[in-house]
Amino acid sequence: ASSYTTSSHASKLLFRQLFEKESSTYTYLLADISHPDKPALLIDPVDKTVDRDLSVIKELGLKLVYALNTHVHADHVTGTGLIKSKALGVKSIISKASGSKADIFVGTGDTVYFGNLFLEVRATPGHTLGCVTYVTGDGPDQPNPRMAFTGDAILIRGCGRTDFQIFTLPKDTLIYPAHDYKGFTVSTVGEEMQYNPRLTKDEEAFKNIMESKSKPVISKDDGHSGARKSGLWDARPDFQSLMNL
Amino acid sequence: ASSYTTSSHASKLLFRQLFEKESSTYTYLLADISHPDKPALLIDPVDKTVDRDLSVIKELGLKLVYALNTHVHADHVTGTGLIKSKALGVKSIISKASGSKADIFVGTGDTVYFGNLFLEVRATPGHTLGCVTYVTGDGPDQPNPRMAFTGDAILIRGCGRTDFQIFTLPKDTLIYPAHDYKGFTVSTVGEEMQYNPRLTKDEEAFKNIMESKSKPVISKDDGHSGARKSGLWDARPDFQSLMNL
Ligand SMILES: [Fe+2]
Ligand SMILES: [Fe+2]
Repeated sequence: ASSYTTSSHASKLLFRQLFEKESSTYTYLLADISHPDKPALLIDPVDKTVDRDLSVIKELGLKLVYALNTHVHADHVTGTGLIKSKALGVKSIISKASGSKADIFVGTGDTVYFGNLFLEVRATPGHTLGCVTYVTGDGPDQPNPRMAFTGDAILIRGCGRTDFQIFTLPKDTLIYPAHDYKGFTVSTVGEEMQYNPRLTKDEEAFKNIMESKSKPVISKDDGHSGARKSGLWDARPDFQSLMNL
Repeated sequence: ASSYTTSSHASKLLFRQLFEKESSTYTYLLADISHPDKPALLIDPVDKTVDRDLSVIKELGLKLVYALNTHVHADHVTGTGLIKSKALGVKSIISKASGSKADIFVGTGDTVYFGNLFLEVRATPGHTLGCVTYVTGDGPDQPNPRMAFTGDAILIRGCGRTDFQIFTLPKDTLIYPAHDYKGFTVSTVGEEMQYNPRLTKDEEAFKNIMESKSKPVISKDDGHSGARKSGLWDARPDFQSLMNL
């Protein structure tokens, strides 16, 4: 099972995981603090917690450059617009496929640099068409293990959409989801391949799980029930083949 | 402000932060995964989430050795008893000064080994008399920066009891509290010295903060209101001298 650690990143990455309790949403702050400007980005900022986020950024002496979204969704009313109005010069980033407005559009293979660190973009459609995962770069000065910001593509030990684009990453890659309802803060590719119900049950068993009481407890206002009912989170036909990688 | 990172631990530490939403309590899992037994410990387990915690421990192939509490408090009904009944051989640990029951009692200067890693115990009384902080060891094979599990001694950017015993640690020491009501997951000694209202306001201003609407939003069942009303969280007389360190 088990050779994981949250550690041994290149020491120049500043990383903070921030939580918005009502929607159970995680916002992530990353910055290159070895660069003189200390350029920073936020992934999936929530409108209600924009002031907290900007305050931490100011206290840490960072310069916010980008506000990225992994997807557009009712459950996290994005804080991007509010951030742009309060912190001038910040550029918003989202996938082309989202059909949403932003300053910069990205897709698979694109990179987003902040200082000498960068994120790679990987399309992980399913929960919504425009869902992307942002993964820290591969290289000697980049965080090790790598970190994947998966948006709604995975719930830890849960039933988001699990995707080739995530499961081809090294097994020690840290998975940071957009939401968690069970109190998990992080997982790894290896762990989710082994213990995520989507991947460890056959399709029929998985459907039973989705319909049974063992599904995660969802807060009433998380905005995901619609997507779940509409079948966007149903098992995809090819998920079993992932087990034969 | 700013040279912090959550990273560059000795790579043999496995670390997980786990959240119990109703009481806004963090439980911490630490293990030495370079040791053949993969010995693990839990800090401040909550009764409601014991099954989740034991499940993660099993999935990661760890052997749970200790269940530690930073303090005894109504708000986190400890999961220690339940853990001992479900995972045989686990020893419970708490401070002597807590007046509580446990297998092993500790106080300032004691160490708790798990594999080749260890925690140091520091008394941080205030919120309750028996409060202790567990700090990862100082040494070449120990996590760097150090990590302090402060229990109720500090709320990040909030009003817990801030103590000499914590503020003499290196400024890059990571602070992991027992509770958070604002969505923070981690801070550092340097940040809290600079931005915690307890330390950055004079005593009168601090009392106003405690009585004003800017105090953290507390969920109705967190069990802290009694302690707050009783004055246990009031400013201590000597806190101003901390500014002159
Ligand atoms: Fe979402
Ligand atoms: Fe407490």
